[in-house]
Amino acid sequence: MIPVGIAGFSGYSGAELVQLLSRHSRVEPVLLEHRETEAPRGPLNYRGPRRMPFAEAYGLPLVFLATPPEVSLELVPGLLNAGTKVVDLSGAFRLGTVENYKRWYKEAHTEPALLAEAVYALPEFYRAQVPGKRLISNPGCYPTAAILALRPRVGAGVVDRKAGIVCDANSGVSGAGRKPSLKTSFCEVTENFSAYAILEHRHVPEILRTSGLEEAELSFTAHLLPIDRGILETIYFRASKPVTDADLIAIYQEAYANEPFVRIYPSGQVPDLRAVTRTNFCDIGVRCDAGTGRVAVIAAIDNLVKGAAGMAVQNMNLALEFPETEGLL
Amino acid sequence: MIPVGIAGFSGYSGAELVQLLSRHSRVEPVLLEHRETEAPRGPLNYRGPRRMPFAEAYGLPLVFLATPPEVSLELVPGLLNAGTKVVDLSGAFRLGTVENYKRWYKEAHTEPALLAEAVYALPEFYRAQVPGKRLISNPGCYPTAAILALRPRVGAGVVDRKAGIVCDANSGVSGAGRKPSLKTSFCEVTENFSAYAILEHRHVPEILRTSGLEEAELSFTAHLLPIDRGILETIYFRASKPVTDADLIAIYQEAYANEPFVRIYPSGQVPDLRAVTRTNFCDIGVRCDAGTGRVAVIAAIDNLVKGAAGMAVQNMNLALEFPETEGLL
Amino acid sequence: MIPVGIAGFSGYSGAELVQLLSRHSRVEPVLLEHRETEAPRGPLNYRGPRRMPFAEAYGLPLVFLATPPEVSLELVPGLLNAGTKVVDLSGAFRLGTVENYKRWYKEAHTEPALLAEAVYALPEFYRAQVPGKRLISNPGCYPTAAILALRPRVGAGVVDRKAGIVCDANSGVSGAGRKPSLKTSFCEVTENFSAYAILEHRHVPEILRTSGLEEAELSFTAHLLPIDRGILETIYFRASKPVTDADLIAIYQEAYANEPFVRIYPSGQVPDLRAVTRTNFCDIGVRCDAGTGRVAVIAAIDNLVKGAAGMAVQNMNLALEFPETEGLL
Amino acid sequence: MIPVGIAGFSGYSGAELVQLLSRHSRVEPVLLEHRETEAPRGPLNYRGPRRMPFAEAYGLPLVFLATPPEVSLELVPGLLNAGTKVVDLSGAFRLGTVENYKRWYKEAHTEPALLAEAVYALPEFYRAQVPGKRLISNPGCYPTAAILALRPRVGAGVVDRKAGIVCDANSGVSGAGRKPSLKTSFCEVTENFSAYAILEHRHVPEILRTSGLEEAELSFTAHLLPIDRGILETIYFRASKPVTDADLIAIYQEAYANEPFVRIYPSGQVPDLRAVTRTNFCDIGVRCDAGTGRVAVIAAIDNLVKGAAGMAVQNMNLALEFPETEGLL
Repeated sequence: MIPVGIAGFSGYSGAELVQLLSRHSRVEPVLLEHRETEAPRGPLNYRGPRRMPFAEAYGLPLVFLATPPEVSLELVPGLLNAGTKVVDLSGAFRLGTVENYKRWYKEAHTEPALLAEAVYALPEFYRAQVPGKRLISNPGCYPTAAILALRPRVGAGVVDRKAGIVCDANSGVSGAGRKPSLKTSFCEVTENFSAYAILEHRHVPEILRTSGLEEAELSFTAHLLPIDRGILETIYFRASKPVTDADLIAIYQEAYANEPFVRIYPSGQVPDLRAVTRTNFCDIGVRCDAGTGRVAVIAAIDNLVKGAAGMAVQNMNLALEFPETEGLL
Repeated sequence: MIPVGIAGFSGYSGAELVQLLSRHSRVEPVLLEHRETEAPRGPLNYRGPRRMPFAEAYGLPLVFLATPPEVSLELVPGLLNAGTKVVDLSGAFRLGTVENYKRWYKEAHTEPALLAEAVYALPEFYRAQVPGKRLISNPGCYPTAAILALRPRVGAGVVDRKAGIVCDANSGVSGAGRKPSLKTSFCEVTENFSAYAILEHRHVPEILRTSGLEEAELSFTAHLLPIDRGILETIYFRASKPVTDADLIAIYQEAYANEPFVRIYPSGQVPDLRAVTRTNFCDIGVRCDAGTGRVAVIAAIDNLVKGAAGMAVQNMNLALEFPETEGLL
Repeated sequence: MIPVGIAGFSGYSGAELVQLLSRHSRVEPVLLEHRETEAPRGPLNYRGPRRMPFAEAYGLPLVFLATPPEVSLELVPGLLNAGTKVVDLSGAFRLGTVENYKRWYKEAHTEPALLAEAVYALPEFYRAQVPGKRLISNPGCYPTAAILALRPRVGAGVVDRKAGIVCDANSGVSGAGRKPSLKTSFCEVTENFSAYAILEHRHVPEILRTSGLEEAELSFTAHLLPIDRGILETIYFRASKPVTDADLIAIYQEAYANEPFVRIYPSGQVPDLRAVTRTNFCDIGVRCDAGTGRVAVIAAIDNLVKGAAGMAVQNMNLALEFPETEGLL
Repeated sequence: MIPVGIAGFSGYSGAELVQLLSRHSRVEPVLLEHRETEAPRGPLNYRGPRRMPFAEAYGLPLVFLATPPEVSLELVPGLLNAGTKVVDLSGAFRLGTVENYKRWYKEAHTEPALLAEAVYALPEFYRAQVPGKRLISNPGCYPTAAILALRPRVGAGVVDRKAGIVCDANSGVSGAGRKPSLKTSFCEVTENFSAYAILEHRHVPEILRTSGLEEAELSFTAHLLPIDRGILETIYFRASKPVTDADLIAIYQEAYANEPFVRIYPSGQVPDLRAVTRTNFCDIGVRCDAGTGRVAVIAAIDNLVKGAAGMAVQNMNLALEFPETEGLL
């Protein structure tokens, strides 16, 4: 078993990684103690994964960073210099240019060369670029669902781009991370629902740069669901020519014919969140009103799996040249 | 105290009516036993509202029907003939024409003359028509929020109607009524989120007939939130001319200057569901990206109060010529 | 309207107080800015209660302290010296003796004279002592339900005290206050349930000192429910003599014959949390297995109303000699 | 891969079985269509498990019945006659005697000979009896946690049986099955908590017959938690002699030294539900007040895994002589 490290293992994405990797047949997860110093708790007759100080990670073949962007920026150079590959789950290396990063993350990017070098690793579109790369940037959770739902449509030219696309996105609370805050306190969230980052979420540029859309063409708003995990996006657009459910489903079926983790629903069915929870699937369904050209697409993922840890394992499989679905089905 | 009857008091809207009317200074709620035959349960030293067989309702000045449309259709004629005013919370008398009813409710309307006679009683726009009417049709929950959010905008001509309007609507489970079903079972709903009636919800024609929009201009999709009560709608459109948050807020401020139950948020703030739960308020906030003309409006109500029982009390107040806010603040 | 102050108005109990007092016919709530400095947010066309700096509270006839015990200890002396009555919702003045306080709150009590002076104001048993007092200590939430359920039984001699009493208590998350913490984060609480303060909750001494039980006779354990508000306690004991449901119900009926806020259920019925949410009631039901003498009592309250703000208003009514139920039914 | 059948696959326990068996290395789950006739739904590019009419189950080596007791009673004889082993998840064959069944299930038992023949298959205590048996009765969910927590204690003689044992049990809603009912409707359960089957749950006789306790010695009450899955029981008793946390933990450690699915917590820690959700573990922690002899034991399981489908797989592993933990870790 090849040891792979996880920094940020006590966060929600980190903990999901530990669980997924524990079922993987080729690797052994190792908890890297970076800021976590608390002794492990739990049953007497149960042994969790191995732990080691972060400093010892430099000898490992691959490390996952389930850390905030500023921590990833600090940790990545040392790991790469030691010859350790990195799958970074933060937003630190997703946006391609320092201008983009500055605008959306409100900080100067401290590693511009690495930003240019990193691969934006959404396997369904960029899997060929992953092997051989040493810095693999795992996409954001919202963009994962949005890009998988949008790109084949935009590519096929069925979207009336002038009328604009609306992406109404809804996420469970784990997407906000594990650090306690009033906004994610139980009593504030239960029996509530709210919009945030209205028309200005920092995941938007990921959608734009991969789908070829202009900023003015996409209205994206995030909402907080009173649930633990899961993202469901309802995407609205107008068809640029007469289409039916069958036409639209055919576009997806063709685009994702060989994809192990994208599932397309038949006409009359759409996924709910439950369909994908605790899986690495992105499920997609459509409803088209042929007469008026109005279209709605529903895309669902588990934000902690396909939207974070699951895709990270998929990327590790690509980077270490294991079968891509190992540990994920 | 004037006695007013409630048929369907054991449903969620009916129970909310009982509670609201118990705090009203001018009327006394009377439970009308129509199909409910179960003996009342509860503490020994507690006396609930008076109950009577439905047949005795014919002497009352006003009756609320918190019943399904087919039951309302059956009960309304007898009540009106007896001189009893009716506030009907079902969809039976909302759509204006028998064609509309047939299309969206999939049944022939059995009382076309009464359908034509009924007032569509959204007080903010039609309050002048309520006094003197004997058949008052309470608007649907989704349309209440949508019309209050949309009509001033459409009227002010700031909406680019050609690009279309998206109304992404989200409701708590009580909107589906109290009859047990798999779809509203706890284990199916908790930690889940789903779209339904995609582009074809039967509340859509209420929005169209009151806002002046064409069907092709509005994409409306309903979603089921894992909460008990509340509706939050995120409405997206494109401005037909350059506007700012301040311009859009000013339109609402003017339209609702004297409305006791519509509250407008300052720039930078939008309501969450919690802001309106268990109140008769409709809260509205906007976010406009001035550069690109993209606009999002957030409107929130409690589906059982402003979206059902609260507005029904507001309508009773108008019908019986009490102060409109009595029992609701 | 008489102005009454609320310190800690942004916490859950404080906010509940504001809401209850806004419906009171004799008083006007005033928000006392102590540590809260944030500007009020909310709709443009809505005016919340009056705010003033805490320093101006000294002229008010009565102030509620919805603050942590250490803050109450700091604020009480000044208020009393200024002739302002205090209803304190914290644990600072509940335990009667400095030894008790030291043991359960792990701090020395800094105001022993005031501790001795304060009245433990559970109205059902101590209402006569409230008028005329200047320092009114509002009971804890768990003890409120436990004492109301236990004291008539212990007094009637039907409890086999040697076998011991079990009080299994369950509370919604708002009982832990509004300060963000990992334990009350949404993702940690939802779809979870846990025991805490097992056999050593600091509310236990309140139950002991008012019911006449010895510590060894009572096993009390608290649990955290994945809900916002409400306390349900299931209390188990063995009867010291043959009894039936009817016998036990009769004891409660007699004890609470004239109580406006204690409701007793008939044989075969017990309250659930929903029965009392957002009310000032304590609901009690029993189930007795006559053959074996095993008894279970179910008591339910809303922890923020009867267990905090509601009882505080009840105590204010007593202190200011208003009708006891004013603003609470 | 050996095919094994599942009747009742659309219920919650049945669906959990399908999921667990899909990850098993030796068997292939086959859905047996008994009353379910609905066509399977779901994504186009996804193939679920094989389905066959129930009539074809007679050739299979083993069948799981995740059906109500009356259906199990009807199906078991035919399967056994055909040489098919049965793991029955219902209560039909758990109570040993027809008298017991008649008393707790309110029906005459129609297969008394099979009732006598069936093994009560709680592996931790009865695993030696499973191989060779053709009718394996899977224990109830509440008793699984209660017996694992109680039996070592009662056996070790540390329980003061005269004072009685309280088992306060709390379950998620999936324990009530998937058939829609008002009691398990979302709006009735969310933000609620309630006791049911107070002192008379039909799972009680399973605890009594396996732990050696008398009915008068055990007070068991079930409660409904507003969550999907999980059981947490807080068990209270008095020690018959002076004991410490360490003494009590040692008893469990010895009893379960070689058990793969029972985990014991160190002093100062107890499990919450989250610790066991979606696992086959039963986690146990204790808190003992040495001075007064009061003891609380916390036991947690996932009602659908260790309390149903997981233990059923464990029993299949024993029956078909696979490694006991196969597919469960």
